[in-house]
Amino acid sequence: MSFVHVSNPQRVVFAPDDAARAVSDEVERLGVRRLMLIGSSGGHADRLAEGLPVAIRQHEVTMHVPVELADTARERAKIADVDAVMSVGGGSAIGLAKAVALTTGLPIIAVPTSFAGSEATDMWGMTQNATKSTGVDPRVLPRAVIYDATLTASMPSNMAVASGLNALAHGVDSMWAPRSDPIDQALAEEAIRSLAYGLGEIVDDPGAISGRERTLYGAYLAAVAFASAGSGLHHKVCHVLGGMFNLPHAQTHAVVLPHVVALNAPADDAANTRISRALGSSTANDGLADLYQRLDAPRSLAELGMPEAGIERAALAIIGVMPAGNPVELTEVNLAALLRRAWKGTPIT
Amino acid sequence: MSFVHVSNPQRVVFAPDDAARAVSDEVERLGVRRLMLIGSSGGHADRLAEGLPVAIRQHEVTMHVPVELADTARERAKIADVDAVMSVGGGSAIGLAKAVALTTGLPIIAVPTSFAGSEATDMWGMTQNATKSTGVDPRVLPRAVIYDATLTASMPSNMAVASGLNALAHGVDSMWAPRSDPIDQALAEEAIRSLAYGLGEIVDDPGAISGRERTLYGAYLAAVAFASAGSGLHHKVCHVLGGMFNLPHAQTHAVVLPHVVALNAPADDAANTRISRALGSSTANDGLADLYQRLDAPRSLAELGMPEAGIERAALAIIGVMPAGNPVELTEVNLAALLRRAWKGTPIT
Repeated sequence: MSFVHVSNPQRVVFAPDDAARAVSDEVERLGVRRLMLIGSSGGHADRLAEGLPVAIRQHEVTMHVPVELADTARERAKIADVDAVMSVGGGSAIGLAKAVALTTGLPIIAVPTSFAGSEATDMWGMTQNATKSTGVDPRVLPRAVIYDATLTASMPSNMAVASGLNALAHGVDSMWAPRSDPIDQALAEEAIRSLAYGLGEIVDDPGAISGRERTLYGAYLAAVAFASAGSGLHHKVCHVLGGMFNLPHAQTHAVVLPHVVALNAPADDAANTRISRALGSSTANDGLADLYQRLDAPRSLAELGMPEAGIERAALAIIGVMPAGNPVELTEVNLAALLRRAWKGTPIT
Repeated sequence: MSFVHVSNPQRVVFAPDDAARAVSDEVERLGVRRLMLIGSSGGHADRLAEGLPVAIRQHEVTMHVPVELADTARERAKIADVDAVMSVGGGSAIGLAKAVALTTGLPIIAVPTSFAGSEATDMWGMTQNATKSTGVDPRVLPRAVIYDATLTASMPSNMAVASGLNALAHGVDSMWAPRSDPIDQALAEEAIRSLAYGLGEIVDDPGAISGRERTLYGAYLAAVAFASAGSGLHHKVCHVLGGMFNLPHAQTHAVVLPHVVALNAPADDAANTRISRALGSSTANDGLADLYQRLDAPRSLAELGMPEAGIERAALAIIGVMPAGNPVELTEVNLAALLRRAWKGTPIT
């Protein structure tokens, strides 16, 4: 038991159906007088803006945060002389808030409306000329995060499942990622338990808030664990696939995950114990299989548009970025076999 | 699911049999040039001092941190112009380091040698004229904590058991304490699992390091959970008993804990599920009973010196400080019954 674990400072508020009050409390607590509010118009940002000291609104947000957009937002923040940034939305809104915080040091208040989890991390990303740069900086870690599950109510249940399984992958991959430690693993176990329970509830009753609440809670802890543990095999695979074939993000993660578990978990007793305990199953593998059946989860990379001819090429590329300390030795052969199963949608058990 | 959880920033290093290197790394990382080293002479502090930029040694440490001692240490820190404080030892050493940090803002590096857990919290305590003051301040939270289980090797196994059960009480009481939230509960569950496992190993093989390592890990997480959740029934009971009858601290906690669990857990499904899952038992109660038998744990307040006549008086005093949100309504009757069982050492199942 030899490890280093760093806990990041963050205030997280779960305020079901009460975001407006919670946001107002945080604005007051941080002494904010001139707020930059980032979030698409016509969405939750409009409603939350009422009663807040909004000095400037940033309506435009774009996936992967183009540098040009980041520069514009930074300039606008400067001209408006704001003292904090608040994002309302999914990964694009928080991503832009982080880009502003990275150069200005302004504190962020995050109000997430998806299960992507970026609000729990000190990681930022931007794109320039179709190339993504990423980094880690304490300035981009939101000071406060406010979760109100009613803000996710408009997400259809199939999208919620894909997004929630993307969050599940943060938790599962934290079990064997390069910097994984027992504290990450304990948080990830709790995350997996909550995500499985919450997603099951969403599928059973898409209109109920309690499933979305549990899913948000699990997504938060999964992201906390992931930020500390780093990218394991699952995220390396999905990163390569996403880059090569331009596949849809959350669905790709959902499809790949059980195949990574099938490869790694039988070789990692601690991970297998934690994942199966979280899923209430005898093995991690069985637990994932049952969950995927229950959720009618996406199964096949072929259906997402990956060409069969890309399998060998992708396996080779994954070898080039393979993570340290994976429980199973990775070869072109076992990676190609994994990808072929994910491509076909071969049942995991 | 409506709660606020604050994660405190801390770097924690588990470095079995490697404290000297880990301490030296932290001193370098923090850029420390003049260190105040707090810790009894003749102990681990002497060995760890080698190779460190120690500007001043503070050998004298005292339980409960008398204000006079705190003032002396603060004055010495000022005269020596130190830029950090390092404590090596149990609660008295870290307590004095916190007293210095509270007024000076100096960063603390903590090297704990017991399972008391103070290094994981932002809580401080001092005594003046036999009266204890306590408070919470971010300045007293150690920046870095270094755990080396070999530093606990000299603790006899019966003392390790009492100290470990005191840590277990931090975890268990976090399940129903006034500010308890799901994140506290998840950390506490992991803590309980590790403490039970580690203490079992210590009893089986007092010389082995792995049991002490697990116990330190559990003690750390239990204290993190406790600092966030606050004092629940167990800690209120022990605080009253300690003040009234001057009983030994860790042993009192060990004796009282299963009786608090017997009262609260059957009325708190979430807590019962988590505690029993952590202990691998069908109920929290059964799990505690088995663990206590295995550990040959202290059982009776009578044996610790509490007078039988004190039971009713103590029950009345506990009513006066009872915690908000306890799962069972507390009355003089059920509290006196609890105390009588703990006094007699009545078996819990």
